[in-house]
Amino acid sequence: MRRAIFPGSFDPITNGHLDIIGRARRLFDEVTIAVLVNIDKNPLFDLEERIELIKASTAHIAGIRVDTFDGLLVNYADRQKIYCIIRGIRAISDYEYELQMALMNRRLAPHIETVFLMAAEPYSYLSSRLVKEVCKLGGSTAGLVPEVVEKKLLEKFKFSQKG
Amino acid sequence: MRRAIFPGSFDPITNGHLDIIGRARRLFDEVTIAVLVNIDKNPLFDLEERIELIKASTAHIAGIRVDTFDGLLVNYADRQKIYCIIRGIRAISDYEYELQMALMNRRLAPHIETVFLMAAEPYSYLSSRLVKEVCKLGGSTAGLVPEVVEKKLLEKFKFSQKG
Amino acid sequence: MRRAIFPGSFDPITNGHLDIIGRARRLFDEVTIAVLVNIDKNPLFDLEERIELIKASTAHIAGIRVDTFDGLLVNYADRQKIYCIIRGIRAISDYEYELQMALMNRRLAPHIETVFLMAAEPYSYLSSRLVKEVCKLGGSTAGLVPEVVEKKLLEKFKFSQKG
Amino acid sequence: MRRAIFPGSFDPITNGHLDIIGRARRLFDEVTIAVLVNIDKNPLFDLEERIELIKASTAHIAGIRVDTFDGLLVNYADRQKIYCIIRGIRAISDYEYELQMALMNRRLAPHIETVFLMAAEPYSYLSSRLVKEVCKLGGSTAGLVPEVVEKKLLEKFKFSQKG
Amino acid sequence: MRRAIFPGSFDPITNGHLDIIGRARRLFDEVTIAVLVNIDKNPLFDLEERIELIKASTAHIAGIRVDTFDGLLVNYADRQKIYCIIRGIRAISDYEYELQMALMNRRLAPHIETVFLMAAEPYSYLSSRLVKEVCKLGGSTAGLVPEVVEKKLLEKFKFSQKG
Amino acid sequence: MRRAIFPGSFDPITNGHLDIIGRARRLFDEVTIAVLVNIDKNPLFDLEERIELIKASTAHIAGIRVDTFDGLLVNYADRQKIYCIIRGIRAISDYEYELQMALMNRRLAPHIETVFLMAAEPYSYLSSRLVKEVCKLGGSTAGLVPEVVEKKLLEKFKFSQKG
Repeated sequence: MRRAIFPGSFDPITNGHLDIIGRARRLFDEVTIAVLVNIDKNPLFDLEERIELIKASTAHIAGIRVDTFDGLLVNYADRQKIYCIIRGIRAISDYEYELQMALMNRRLAPHIETVFLMAAEPYSYLSSRLVKEVCKLGGSTAGLVPEVVEKKLLEKFKFSQKG
Repeated sequence: MRRAIFPGSFDPITNGHLDIIGRARRLFDEVTIAVLVNIDKNPLFDLEERIELIKASTAHIAGIRVDTFDGLLVNYADRQKIYCIIRGIRAISDYEYELQMALMNRRLAPHIETVFLMAAEPYSYLSSRLVKEVCKLGGSTAGLVPEVVEKKLLEKFKFSQKG
Repeated sequence: MRRAIFPGSFDPITNGHLDIIGRARRLFDEVTIAVLVNIDKNPLFDLEERIELIKASTAHIAGIRVDTFDGLLVNYADRQKIYCIIRGIRAISDYEYELQMALMNRRLAPHIETVFLMAAEPYSYLSSRLVKEVCKLGGSTAGLVPEVVEKKLLEKFKFSQKG
Repeated sequence: MRRAIFPGSFDPITNGHLDIIGRARRLFDEVTIAVLVNIDKNPLFDLEERIELIKASTAHIAGIRVDTFDGLLVNYADRQKIYCIIRGIRAISDYEYELQMALMNRRLAPHIETVFLMAAEPYSYLSSRLVKEVCKLGGSTAGLVPEVVEKKLLEKFKFSQKG
Repeated sequence: MRRAIFPGSFDPITNGHLDIIGRARRLFDEVTIAVLVNIDKNPLFDLEERIELIKASTAHIAGIRVDTFDGLLVNYADRQKIYCIIRGIRAISDYEYELQMALMNRRLAPHIETVFLMAAEPYSYLSSRLVKEVCKLGGSTAGLVPEVVEKKLLEKFKFSQKG
Repeated sequence: MRRAIFPGSFDPITNGHLDIIGRARRLFDEVTIAVLVNIDKNPLFDLEERIELIKASTAHIAGIRVDTFDGLLVNYADRQKIYCIIRGIRAISDYEYELQMALMNRRLAPHIETVFLMAAEPYSYLSSRLVKEVCKLGGSTAGLVPEVVEKKLLEKFKFSQKG
């Protein structure tokens, strides 16, 4: 069985992520969405919320696992015995960062391969950060994130406005 | 009457901004300089100072309005009934960020157009951030910012040195 | 009256060009599509065909002129007394070339401004060259070029296959 | 069985290509090296020579097929019923071209996926064109191409020097 | 005597830095490694530690001085009467930032020249920041930094894990 | 004595080249301008003309030699016992090509160092090709090339217009 890991912060999952997950499933029998337990940063959604949103957004796709990891991604991959990492690249902006991480990961674990899939054009400029910024400023995120995420984003920023 | 918005933080206004404003005025009858009320960041100049410096630096140019906005830029543009946003692009460094913002703005408000003007070569590497950094470290900002800004920058960093 | 020039080879006109022309018309009262008389290169469509295809594709848009030019673009602009040049930029690939041309044009004629509009995402990778390549190899160009161009492309490559 | 196509001109095959082929075989059960029958260009090695060099260089790897194609790559892929295309990307220089081709291919055949693998650092600047240039000027290509290719390159340029 | 300055934060010195220092010494009789006294940032190694690690890592190379500076780099260069600044550029990621700094430095002090040397490929993705990140997450930094630095990194992160 | 080679086609020499040559002379006691004998391409100026224009344009600078080379640059450098190659980089457009050549040259001759100097901003978009194009179309090249080159360019294109 061909397996792959799709790692990220997913704070929150966007339609860009879902697009890559769908593509990845055409290539791999099982895709593990691995959510980074990032204790340093200050996420909008806590780990449980992020996992819940991923699960709700991918429930209709077979062959998806959702898991968490901390520490080095390649160590997690080794523990899982999954030797392929999937990364989405967008036409705009993250190419060099992605290359840098892939080269470092290759050095740390040469037996693990990084595979790049290209984001579809409508998502070529989309990021979790930008989605949060737009929502915070009162813009609509319809079509940018799954509906369940859109609803949760509105809740978050309503609460934060009260505070 | 052709109208356009030139948005930004202007912390502080530089000669690069003034160059773009001058070019924009050749294309539009009225240019509204819209200063972002950025409550999160920690600006060097407060909103009143930034507006004052912009007004002093553009007093000699007809057809300039100075205003402030918070929230989404495209919502501000709609309220103003101004359907054109002007952005300067520099040879160095901000192309991808500008494209990302322009694509998101188009999605949020397809009836508003973003127009890019190219910064003149002497300003191709200039930014408000770099100007502040140079001044803070004791370098001259003559020729990089209007004289009134240069004077204010020196005051700021003298005070901050006292503190 | 605000006027602008949209220069190019248009060999042939694509939906990416039409998208930019539509955007430009929201900013300018009249847009002159200026077809480069390029005697050196070996175009697929001769000058008359290119003009005819542009006219057929823009007939439904008011305020469009179609003209030809040779020599320096800025000299043509001066003769036309049109002091604004419009260029489309795509997320992918032509940013640096566009900047180089704009800087040279500014040096040759500082009173003429170059304005950049951003191609819509579905056209972010589109070029006349790529369209011709796809058609030549038997791929469909539906949705990439106006229907009248699609038809002409098929004719061209059928003839060229006979030859 | 997971299958993929690795298309190219391979004029001639380099160690950079071999690196990608090796990586691809860890992900796919069978990799078809598809040599473009490029009648327009003027290759150094004719189609038979290019195929022979690929076969000699990959004889030690199981699960490799060598084939040729002309016309659209996605049409060839459809005829072969192989729905995955592999492309190597190098840190330097070909990112934008690769994205453009992948986006066009996706439009022409949305059911075919393009997968990008990253060239190893020692090959990050390597191309068939550069190898030919170096050899032509009398430089050593040892380590850049398989030995069998190195030998053939020397023969080619010795003959061409006689002519 | 040809002299040059190699400025940086060196938090900590990496094998990429050492590679550039070695190259620089083939071009200049003396290279001054100038460590930025960066009071704002929160470095992993304090100034004394950074200097100590640089000295230990370069003890075997003749013609190396280690010094510190604060304020503008070009003012420091002037005080030292050294009119050449060396910067390493990597294939990935820092080209635009380096150009921006070099252009600003040229404006501030036109008599001081910035010389760029290219990092060797194995270090093309290496940075002090990335090294710290890898070590913090439990990855090996062997081959990325001098042994003395590797040892110190392990100590730092062991202490920080206790805390 | 510190020596360096500044290689190129110089068809013709521009003010951008002269700017780099001047900078290089502040770093090196002698700079050899090495003109590529490019038999394949179709230059505007033949080798003798190119050398003559370089000599006329650099006559006022001490420590300049003008020479020609064919074959591999690094082999020429070895024969000359000059182990440093100077390349100018412009903010716009040639970074990746320059890196590719420098990496290949390092592989072919690790004892030869490539040093990059940054073109001054007014020349950041300038190239011999662009200068020829502008002149051919009737534009002024004053300030872009030395006066002696400007005169020769006008002669060339007048003759070519007669033909």
